[in-house]
Amino acid sequence: MTDNTSYRKALTGIRVVDFTQVIFGPSCTAQLADHGAEVIKIERPGVGDLSRQFGPYVDDESMPYASLNRNKQSLAVNLKSPQGMEAVLKLIDSADVVVSNFRQGVMESLGLGWDEVHARNPRAIYTSGSGYGPDGPIGSTRKMGHDSMAQAMTGVMYVNADSNGVPKRAPIAVADISAGSLLMEGIILALIERGVSGEGQKVEVSLIDAVLRMEAWGIATVANATAEADHLGNPLDGGVYSAADGYMVITGLFKPNPLQSICEVLGIEDLSQDGRFSSVDLMTENGAELESIIQAEVEKHPRDYWVAKFDAVDVLCMPVLSLDESIEEPQVLHNEMGVEVPSNGAAGSSTITQRHVGIPVKLGTTPGTIETPAPGIGENSREVLAGIGYSNEEIDQMLATGVIGIG
Amino acid sequence: MTDNTSYRKALTGIRVVDFTQVIFGPSCTAQLADHGAEVIKIERPGVGDLSRQFGPYVDDESMPYASLNRNKQSLAVNLKSPQGMEAVLKLIDSADVVVSNFRQGVMESLGLGWDEVHARNPRAIYTSGSGYGPDGPIGSTRKMGHDSMAQAMTGVMYVNADSNGVPKRAPIAVADISAGSLLMEGIILALIERGVSGEGQKVEVSLIDAVLRMEAWGIATVANATAEADHLGNPLDGGVYSAADGYMVITGLFKPNPLQSICEVLGIEDLSQDGRFSSVDLMTENGAELESIIQAEVEKHPRDYWVAKFDAVDVLCMPVLSLDESIEEPQVLHNEMGVEVPSNGAAGSSTITQRHVGIPVKLGTTPGTIETPAPGIGENSREVLAGIGYSNEEIDQMLATGVIGIG
Repeated sequence: MTDNTSYRKALTGIRVVDFTQVIFGPSCTAQLADHGAEVIKIERPGVGDLSRQFGPYVDDESMPYASLNRNKQSLAVNLKSPQGMEAVLKLIDSADVVVSNFRQGVMESLGLGWDEVHARNPRAIYTSGSGYGPDGPIGSTRKMGHDSMAQAMTGVMYVNADSNGVPKRAPIAVADISAGSLLMEGIILALIERGVSGEGQKVEVSLIDAVLRMEAWGIATVANATAEADHLGNPLDGGVYSAADGYMVITGLFKPNPLQSICEVLGIEDLSQDGRFSSVDLMTENGAELESIIQAEVEKHPRDYWVAKFDAVDVLCMPVLSLDESIEEPQVLHNEMGVEVPSNGAAGSSTITQRHVGIPVKLGTTPGTIETPAPGIGENSREVLAGIGYSNEEIDQMLATGVIGIG
Repeated sequence: MTDNTSYRKALTGIRVVDFTQVIFGPSCTAQLADHGAEVIKIERPGVGDLSRQFGPYVDDESMPYASLNRNKQSLAVNLKSPQGMEAVLKLIDSADVVVSNFRQGVMESLGLGWDEVHARNPRAIYTSGSGYGPDGPIGSTRKMGHDSMAQAMTGVMYVNADSNGVPKRAPIAVADISAGSLLMEGIILALIERGVSGEGQKVEVSLIDAVLRMEAWGIATVANATAEADHLGNPLDGGVYSAADGYMVITGLFKPNPLQSICEVLGIEDLSQDGRFSSVDLMTENGAELESIIQAEVEKHPRDYWVAKFDAVDVLCMPVLSLDESIEEPQVLHNEMGVEVPSNGAAGSSTITQRHVGIPVKLGTTPGTIETPAPGIGENSREVLAGIGYSNEEIDQMLATGVIGIG
């Protein structure tokens, strides 16, 4: 927790009714919550967000779930019960934003489609995350969205193929998280626009569209292809070498003759004067040769030695870190991107802390903060219902009849 | 171009003075421009954005540059000339947002640091994209940021290693583009907050922080590790198989017994009853065996055959497409993610069109549009300067003395 005090943040006063689960939607609403929005997570009593099923568990709490749900409240309510739906509709009446990432048709079948929500609460921004878009050849089917499908469909797995040409999934959730950011963008754009029009609007983002946007540069090169080589084959753009104590990357770009500087650091003759390597096209063509010359020198010293030497001539060099090394890296710690959050698991022990990723968007005057850990299923049912006018007696009755779940 | 008419969009009326180049910053300001902000790109006369140096070229225009700079205007001005700086300061006085992604210290050395800009124009939001953060062990050095450095530092290359354990860069600009989205988020959050406080604030996002956020789920699993396996080893989560006509992916998740459905589709006995595959842990342990059984069946038919069969039992299946196949895929076309933009190159020929990626954030009432192709260096110098009060004579004098460049 970077701060325990509540104060005005960028989204203070914005209420979000959040039907999302797993990664895409929760990664969006986590950012809304980090920046001060009141995010009320609607969960199924007993089961909750599907991400709770993924381990590892600490203090009986799913770490994947915990990573994307801090700063939120949980209302556990049975959406198939009329009394439960009535409570959710009351909540929607008080909402600035309604977010979901169910598969196509689910919100409509619950009576929570755009038309119904907009008619009840014209100021509410209505946001849907989908796998493929809300309509179209795949979007109009009930096919579920998933990061693996989006990566397959958008060329990511194809360009990430192994040396045998077998496609390989990029091992981070590029589709889910980039789409989550875009959904957040859409919501805050619509909040700005509501300041002018007074009305909420529909916001839609799909996993495939989000990945395609990530690939805009690459797509522009293949979709408008000419004979000219593109720079991704340049061996000076992110070449991987094995130093005495592990792998590192060298990138020499954006200066007149980076190869000359690299050779100077390596203590070898200037290969930029060598006919095999005297242009980017030639370096690309003879990349394997160039890499083996560089590799023979790099392996003589450890990575820190090289990083300091390359820094001095303004050529980029970095050790290749694993995820757990990364989260302990001094600059990462300085940026408060590896943070401690108290455990909120079943055992409820405040002596256990969890490590999670911090807040990347750094606002100077009204920074986001982590105020509360991820909630248990229905942990805030009582307060949320009380806040929209339910009495203690009504809440107890709803609990007794299984309409809601509490903590 | 999806539309040629100008109408109110979410960010209509917001003026952005944009010092960014290459990918990170321009991917942020492209989104601001798509949603209606007036983005004025400050370029060096004659040279311009560094991305203009990357091919392929169409009609003498760099396609990578074109992909990230549509809807913007270009003012080419020499920042080292006092008269040029005076014009830029006048422009900043009229700005809602100032964005840069120079290396550490450059904006300050130009006299355009936060203190100076905030003193001149307290309403301006001051936004910096960096490689590593604005301070700290690496952030405080002049080390340049680059996608390859961020991927090395954050575990992406490590987890993407090839079968020999050699780290491999994810072949899309995950750091640049995710950081660009977060920078956009920060800007709109600060615009919302300015509506309350009346003052602009500082917004900072780094490449490494953006990637770490993408990895929140994975980091939560390794940083809070227990004995329990995490689901990424599950062979039903994105397994790659070779069908009769190419590669495809199968993902069976979020249903009680996906392996049973997969076997039913393949027409083989129910492997979920087989002791080797009767739990996710066992499937993971015996993953190679399971994959070879599935592979033997998949290769008998083409991909479309399997996609239809798997769709019918609600198991996810998708062909692995290349980038150029992806941009022609029917759902992608339906989503208007592969768009035609008229060429704006040196030849200025309106008969040439370019293919680019569309707008992924779909707003229902005030959708973003592509109104103009990416500008040439200084294409809008004259209008921009006229708009802040310069006379034609003054502009001609600045052009003659090399203070500005035009078209």
